[in-house]
Amino acid sequence: MFDRVRVVLVNTSHPGNIGGAARAMKNMGLTRLVLVDPERYPDPNAQARASGADDVLAGAQVVATLEEAIADCTLVMGTSARDRRIPWPVVDPREAASKVLDQLEVLDSAEIALVFGREDSGLTSEELQRCQFHVHIPSNPEFSSLNLGAAVQVLAYELRMAYLQRQGQPTKMHKLETTNRQNEIPATAEDLERYFTHLEQVLMEIGFLDPAKPRQLMPRLRRLYGRVQINQVEMNILRGILTETQKAIGVQASGERRR
Amino acid sequence: MFDRVRVVLVNTSHPGNIGGAARAMKNMGLTRLVLVDPERYPDPNAQARASGADDVLAGAQVVATLEEAIADCTLVMGTSARDRRIPWPVVDPREAASKVLDQLEVLDSAEIALVFGREDSGLTSEELQRCQFHVHIPSNPEFSSLNLGAAVQVLAYELRMAYLQRQGQPTKMHKLETTNRQNEIPATAEDLERYFTHLEQVLMEIGFLDPAKPRQLMPRLRRLYGRVQINQVEMNILRGILTETQKAIGVQASGERRR
Repeated sequence: MFDRVRVVLVNTSHPGNIGGAARAMKNMGLTRLVLVDPERYPDPNAQARASGADDVLAGAQVVATLEEAIADCTLVMGTSARDRRIPWPVVDPREAASKVLDQLEVLDSAEIALVFGREDSGLTSEELQRCQFHVHIPSNPEFSSLNLGAAVQVLAYELRMAYLQRQGQPTKMHKLETTNRQNEIPATAEDLERYFTHLEQVLMEIGFLDPAKPRQLMPRLRRLYGRVQINQVEMNILRGILTETQKAIGVQASGERRR
Repeated sequence: MFDRVRVVLVNTSHPGNIGGAARAMKNMGLTRLVLVDPERYPDPNAQARASGADDVLAGAQVVATLEEAIADCTLVMGTSARDRRIPWPVVDPREAASKVLDQLEVLDSAEIALVFGREDSGLTSEELQRCQFHVHIPSNPEFSSLNLGAAVQVLAYELRMAYLQRQGQPTKMHKLETTNRQNEIPATAEDLERYFTHLEQVLMEIGFLDPAKPRQLMPRLRRLYGRVQINQVEMNILRGILTETQKAIGVQASGERRR
């Protein structure tokens, strides 16, 4: 789904971070990795941290310069942690994702690069000047430098979120859909009323609720159970508890207490 | 700013991931880390990956059980990659952040836990049932398990984004107006480089750019043209202007000025 988006890592020092970036990419559905003059690559540490994203590593393209990495790109975004003397159009990761998706939607020939700099010093001013936008990940000004894999993770995550939202796809699992339908059907108002009547009765029977001094007990319980959107299976459980409580304290269906 | 939010890591195997989580937290302004029964801790690998977030590690509390870690919490959210048989309220990281901020705003005594499970198997069903919400990070269904530090990074990032937005603070360093020309084919990076080379040459020829004192002229022009997302028609126009300028001032293709 992101075959026209490449992640470009410039002059990475630690091969483990290349693996971390590959894993973060694959987690979010990105596959194209370009390495500009990596210090150590290939390297077993890259493999180890990729933790299964070996296909992304195997497909990684190694080039000598940033120019090569982005030559055919129609949109180049560079991550930047530092404030620069020369102001540049800066976007946060969410806006960056939105711009990427905008271009993918309207331009069949779009080729987009997300460029990440060195672990210690980021991208140079010259490199940043080759990017149309600078992406700033909002961070603690006193501790602003993210791990390289973590930075790739944030951008890749925003891309996936933006993609899913535009496709009208859920951004989370619908656990309810995968389960037994009966679990999903909410209790009706009538069910709830029957339950509250039963509950009130039991609370009186166990001596917790004094009808002469009801305080705000029932309204509070109504509010509590109302808020949780009880489903029918849960309703049956709650009713069962009340019935069993009544049995345990020796109350018959008639409501009279056995002697 | 998040002193009432704790990150809880359950039964972590690799101490490097504890360090990665601490770094991600500090990057986003989180400070409180609770470790439930970590396999190896303290450990130099935690220190190494924390990469300066030593204060977060130093302040980490180590406890024996999840119950202890969350006992005083008013809101507990657990991350979950897997589908479960028991349906549960599931939120994506953005919704999770929104709920956390909601509670921090309205409840002075709020104490909130974000719980992360084991690297290989996540949280158990029992542990997940102690959480009011399950947070699902949207991911590639075929490769869904994020690195632990990366998962902490995504949630911490969403918390910071939500916080900054509610405070009306910028989520990035600068905001300059940008233009999208959606119906036109953008110039490529290569086209732009050729243009800048040509432009620089002409600016020297007309005496506007002094190579001995370039000031910030070229970076500023790069910023300007980078920002407007030049399309190919515009590129041709701009190149045409340069060529015509050169003709007008009497420069030949050789670069010599006519007398």
